[in-house]
Formats: sequence, C-alpha cells, structure tokens
Amino acid sequence: MEISARIRGFQASPIRRLSPYAIAAKERGVKVYHLNIGQPDIKTPQEAIDAVHSYPYGIISYGESDGDMPLRKGLVEYYKGIGVDIDAQDILITTGGSEALLFAFMTLCDPGDEVIVPEPYYTNVHSFAGMANVKIVPVTSVFDNGFALPPLDVIESKITKKTMAVLLCSPNNPTGHVYTPQEFETVLRICVKHDLFLIVDEVYREFCYDGEVFTSILKYKDYADRVICVDSFSKRFSMCGARVGALVSRNRNVITETLKLSQARLCPPSVEQYAALAALSAPHEYMAQVHDEYENRRDFIVDALRRIPGVKCIKPKGAFYLIAELPVEDAEDFAIFMLRDFSYNGETVMLAPAEGFYETDGLGRNQVRIAYVLNTQDLEKACKCLEKGLEAYKENHR
Amino acid sequence: MEISARIRGFQASPIRRLSPYAIAAKERGVKVYHLNIGQPDIKTPQEAIDAVHSYPYGIISYGESDGDMPLRKGLVEYYKGIGVDIDAQDILITTGGSEALLFAFMTLCDPGDEVIVPEPYYTNVHSFAGMANVKIVPVTSVFDNGFALPPLDVIESKITKKTMAVLLCSPNNPTGHVYTPQEFETVLRICVKHDLFLIVDEVYREFCYDGEVFTSILKYKDYADRVICVDSFSKRFSMCGARVGALVSRNRNVITETLKLSQARLCPPSVEQYAALAALSAPHEYMAQVHDEYENRRDFIVDALRRIPGVKCIKPKGAFYLIAELPVEDAEDFAIFMLRDFSYNGETVMLAPAEGFYETDGLGRNQVRIAYVLNTQDLEKACKCLEKGLEAYKENHR
Repeated sequence: MEISARIRGFQASPIRRLSPYAIAAKERGVKVYHLNIGQPDIKTPQEAIDAVHSYPYGIISYGESDGDMPLRKGLVEYYKGIGVDIDAQDILITTGGSEALLFAFMTLCDPGDEVIVPEPYYTNVHSFAGMANVKIVPVTSVFDNGFALPPLDVIESKITKKTMAVLLCSPNNPTGHVYTPQEFETVLRICVKHDLFLIVDEVYREFCYDGEVFTSILKYKDYADRVICVDSFSKRFSMCGARVGALVSRNRNVITETLKLSQARLCPPSVEQYAALAALSAPHEYMAQVHDEYENRRDFIVDALRRIPGVKCIKPKGAFYLIAELPVEDAEDFAIFMLRDFSYNGETVMLAPAEGFYETDGLGRNQVRIAYVLNTQDLEKACKCLEKGLEAYKENHR
Repeated sequence: MEISARIRGFQASPIRRLSPYAIAAKERGVKVYHLNIGQPDIKTPQEAIDAVHSYPYGIISYGESDGDMPLRKGLVEYYKGIGVDIDAQDILITTGGSEALLFAFMTLCDPGDEVIVPEPYYTNVHSFAGMANVKIVPVTSVFDNGFALPPLDVIESKITKKTMAVLLCSPNNPTGHVYTPQEFETVLRICVKHDLFLIVDEVYREFCYDGEVFTSILKYKDYADRVICVDSFSKRFSMCGARVGALVSRNRNVITETLKLSQARLCPPSVEQYAALAALSAPHEYMAQVHDEYENRRDFIVDALRRIPGVKCIKPKGAFYLIAELPVEDAEDFAIFMLRDFSYNGETVMLAPAEGFYETDGLGRNQVRIAYVLNTQDLEKACKCLEKGLEAYKENHR
C-alpha cells in the first residue's frame, strides 16, 4: 500500500489554482498585472519600519500567549478612537487575522458543528473550517442586490441544532459590501433567537467610502456575550507579512478557552508585535491618505470596467475588492486564457475567478474578484488588457 | 440558556496552571527562579538582530506560503552541514515548530485518528491533537530506564486501524533523552510493518552532550516516504519569539497537502524569516559556545540536584530539560507550596509538575520537569531554594 494514500486531502485555495499559468506567462516575458490578490503596494507606516530598525532587545524571546500587553493596551486606545470601549483583557493578539478566524472556529465548534456564512466569502474561511472540522453553510448574497445580507427567512432556514455561529466579513472580501447597522441588528436578533454567536471579520474597517463611517460590531454592547470580532494589522497598515491580528470578545469564556489554544502555540511573533504597536502611532494623515488612495482607485476601476462592453460591476462601498460580471460563460476558462494565450503590448492581467468564493456549485461562474491594490496607471493598463482580452476571447470562442 | 455553555472546552496547559501562584509570589516581593519554562537567557545571534535592524523593505508584505525561498535554500545548506541531503521543495517554513506539529497532525489524520507518543511528552502536543481532533495514544517510557524507547511489543500493542503515526521528540522535551539510531530503526520498522508515518521533533538537535553527535531522522532516506521532521529556529538560535520553524518531508504528497494549510494562513512572519536566514550565517563558534554553556549547566544542575537528599535525576543526554524525582508524594502540591508558602532569602523556585506531561493518569506524580536555561549562579541559588523548600515542606507535612 502506498503510504500517501492514507493522508487526508484538503481542497486547494481557488485563488491559488491559476498560479502555474501566471508563472508560465512571466517566463514567456509577459508582464502580469495582479488583480487577483490583496497585497497592497502602499507603504507600511514609517513608524513601524523604524520600530523594526530599532528593535531594542538582544534576545527575540517568547512573548505572552495573549499578546504583548503594550500592544493590547495600544489597541484599547485605537478602539477608543473608533468609538469602541473595550478592555485589554477582551483582546487576544493572534498570528494574523487568519489565526483569529481559525481559533474562533475551534473555540466555538465541536467537530461537525456548522457556521452560516453569506457567499461569496473569503476563500480561506473554507480551509479554516476544514482544519477545525467545521461545516460551512452558505446563504447566497446576490450581485443584483449589491451583495446585501440575504433575507432573514433564508438565513433562518439554514439553522440546525449544529449551528454555532454566523460569520460576516464587513467591509466584505470579496464583494466590497459594507453591512449596515440594520443588517447587523437583523443578524444579532437571529443569533439571540437561535442562541448563536456572531463572528465579524472587520479587517477592512478603515476602508469605507463615500463618506460612510463604519459601525463596528463591538459597539453592540447589549449583545456582548455573542460577539467575536476578528481584526488585523495587515491591510490597515499594509503590513500583511507581519502576521499580527486580534480576536476580540467581551465573552470571558470565549477568551479563556481561546487563550488555551494561544498557549499551545506559545506566542505571536515578537518583533512584529513591536512594529505593530508603533504602527498604531502613525499619524492620522497616514490612514487618511491610504483611504483616499483606495477610494480613488475604486472610482477609477469602476469607471474603467463599466466602459468595457459587457462588463458589469457594482460600485463597492468598502474594502478593496469588487466582484465583476464578465460577458463570458466560464470566468476561470477566461482567466486561464488571459495568462496562457493572450497578451497586449506584452502585458496581461491575472484575475481571481469568483466561482471559488461560492460554496454552492455553479454560482459565480461568469464573475471574477478584482483587488484594486495597484496604482491607477497600472489599473488603467490592466483594464485595457482586460478589454482587449475579452475581445480576443470572444473571437476565439465564436 | 447561557450562550457560553455551548463553547467547546479545552484542557489548559499544565505548565501554565501554576502561573497565578508565581504572579502572587512576585507581588509579595519574592524573587522566582523559573525552572519551569524553556525561555533561554542566551543571546540571539548578532547576525539575526542586525538583520532586523537593517530590514531592507518599506512594505512588510506577504511572503510565499511555503516560506521565503532564500530561507528554504539556507536550510538546505544548513542540513548539508549536519549530513542531510534535502531539497528546498521538501521544506515548508512554518510559524514556529508549533505550527509544523499542528500541520503534521492535520495533514496526516482524519478526525478521530490516533498518534502514538512516548510519555512523558511535550504538553502542547496534547493541545495540537485537540485542535486537530486527533487522539494521542501514550506508550510509557520510564525513569529507571532513562526514558528510553518503550519495548517494541508495547508500542505494537497500541496500534489500531486508526493509528496514523508515531511521534518522537529527540533530543527529548521533557526527559532529555536522545533516541539512538537503533531506537529510530526499531520505530521505522514498526512504521513500515503497520503502514504508519514517523514524525520526529528535532528542534533541540544541536543540544547533545558528552561528545555525542545527533543522527537526524532525515538521514534514513530508505524510509523517506514515511518521515516528517519538525524543526525550529527558536531554541537553536535563542529566537523563540520569532516563530520560525519548518516541516520537512521527502514525501511529496505530505508537502502538497500541508501547503494547502499553509496557503490558508497566507505566510509565516516576514521580518523574522529575514532574521532567521541571517541566524544561519552565525559563526560555528556561536553554536559551539551555546552548546558548551548548556552542557556546563547540565553538569552543574545534575550535581546540585543529586546532592539534595531524596532527589533523583538521570543525567540527560540532550536538550535542556530533565525529569527529577522528588521525595514528595505530590509534586504539584509541592510546587504550589514553593510559590505560595515558601521563600529562602526572599527567593523561591518555580517548577513544572511532571504529571501534566503524562497522558496516563497517576504517572509522574512525584516528578518535576526542570529547564536548565538559567546561568549557573542562578541555578545554584535555585537549587539551594529547592533544598530548603523540600526541608520546609517535609516539616509542614509531618
């Protein structure tokens, strides 16, 4: 018997599946604009880089499992700044928002328990669920409705005895939808009625546009016992590689149980927690500039996409993603075509087929997720490639 | 219904259970020598600190999910230096050895599968097993036999249809035992016979004493398909807070499946991978000095402990831990006494009761794990406290 046959298999992340085609394109000398991933080109605050450069210790030693207290206290102040009153003891520093999501699943759920998530959703949630042996139960949010919260009765119809939580991401990756206070209240009422937790991933909190101010789930103190907020320094301060995030909850038992998981893996990275603390001291202008830059890019790419015949997109209210509908039957086939068979002036575009962001088979087949993390010049060239690529694809598929 | 009642409960790490007593002791002004934890006082290589101070990027961006290639190539060279021929593609950089252990469990095991581990064992293994819904099946190694590998037939008697792997830690935390090539071969034969994987945690590889040279499991190329090696920069380079480790296997399917888990959590910390690469360039004298320092401490503490009436310990062959038998019935009760009720010249000692390192109830009740990570002056004072504490405890428990 082949020993490997005994290994457990996992589903590959759909946003990774096209990577070999991108590598091949680059090997052929084609420049690839990456609209498929969320790696911002924005500089990390100089305060954080300076902190790395002046790391004061001669030993990079274990920190506390719940995170370095100065950083937790720094977050208390940060939350005050967004109108949220929270104690340091309600905050566990995690190794990125990723670990906060994984720990939330593990803490809340026994194997086989279910978590309800509006689809399309952040693909890695599927992997974390697999790691925690949790079943994701999707409720479909639809393009034509701006990816708003699905109707109350649809959500309720998905609840079983095994349902432990509802998970929302707001501002949303991949749709850019920002859940309204009314939508939060609807979900909270469902959670009370059916005795569920609400996990809200707010890592894009600062990126709300058109003058809207984001309402954090942490403001709903009446529901404190049911709420877990997932947070991260990655996107806010363009320090994705630092792997510093947080799990925040006023439910003491959630914190106590999650801390046991934190203790097992000892601590989050020490140098980068030090950098994250410094990032919190970045001037208000840093965030304001970054915010305006993304809003500008959003406006730019929405206009550019809408000018391409057959392309539809909703103007997203937050984060730096959008879902676009393309005039093709199979967006994955088109995305592969763009990398394997096409270039325009020696350039092409990598897109993330949206199908992988849906749990329900067959949904999102003509959609792609676009991350607008490039500067507007590059976005312009990328959209031109997309337009020319769609023409060439149509030509090929006559 | 109280929502928290629905949360899944986890077992707290037994080495953390005494922390409140230590905090209280410090608040009373008592100096506590920590023999309970493995945080070395050795300096991180200056090369690593210098790398942090000269981190060259303005954006702390995502790295590759399988780790930064320069670091993986650096590890290839490092392994060459210990006589192991391995490819970069066989190495996944992980967020500490902790994540490598967790990922190994998740990749190999379906929920409910079993892993055989000689006890006493590193307590966090129990937590990782809980997170992966894996059952740890202990085989007892005994004090009087120097914590050598339990007999072949005892190990075989534990194998069921659900057994997926045997896990060894060598040099061992908490016993200090170094598995011999004969012991490795015995286990490998069992693995072939029963179609199991062998996971070996070698994070203390460099810390072998009395002139012994450690044989890595990675040298057994005939068994390449069955072997997973867990590695870490934490102890080797005294950079525990960096959270940089590795999972190494020549089994391509293991790497492919584990990479999917790695992709879900995006990447290991970027700044600290950069520091880890630099640590690999530390001169040979760094490791030689650290090695000699620990060997010196081992010799010192073994002598000091053996001079205390009623205390027994085996001279460990590696790592920087040992298991000591104390002349008490309940080592945890004694450890609490030392923190809560005792001090000598304003000082006391924190010990890790060994019971928590055993899976089988009732074993190790008169044992403690001692980490000799303090300098010899401190170790001397700590042993004096221990001696006086044992006298006082005896007096109290007459």
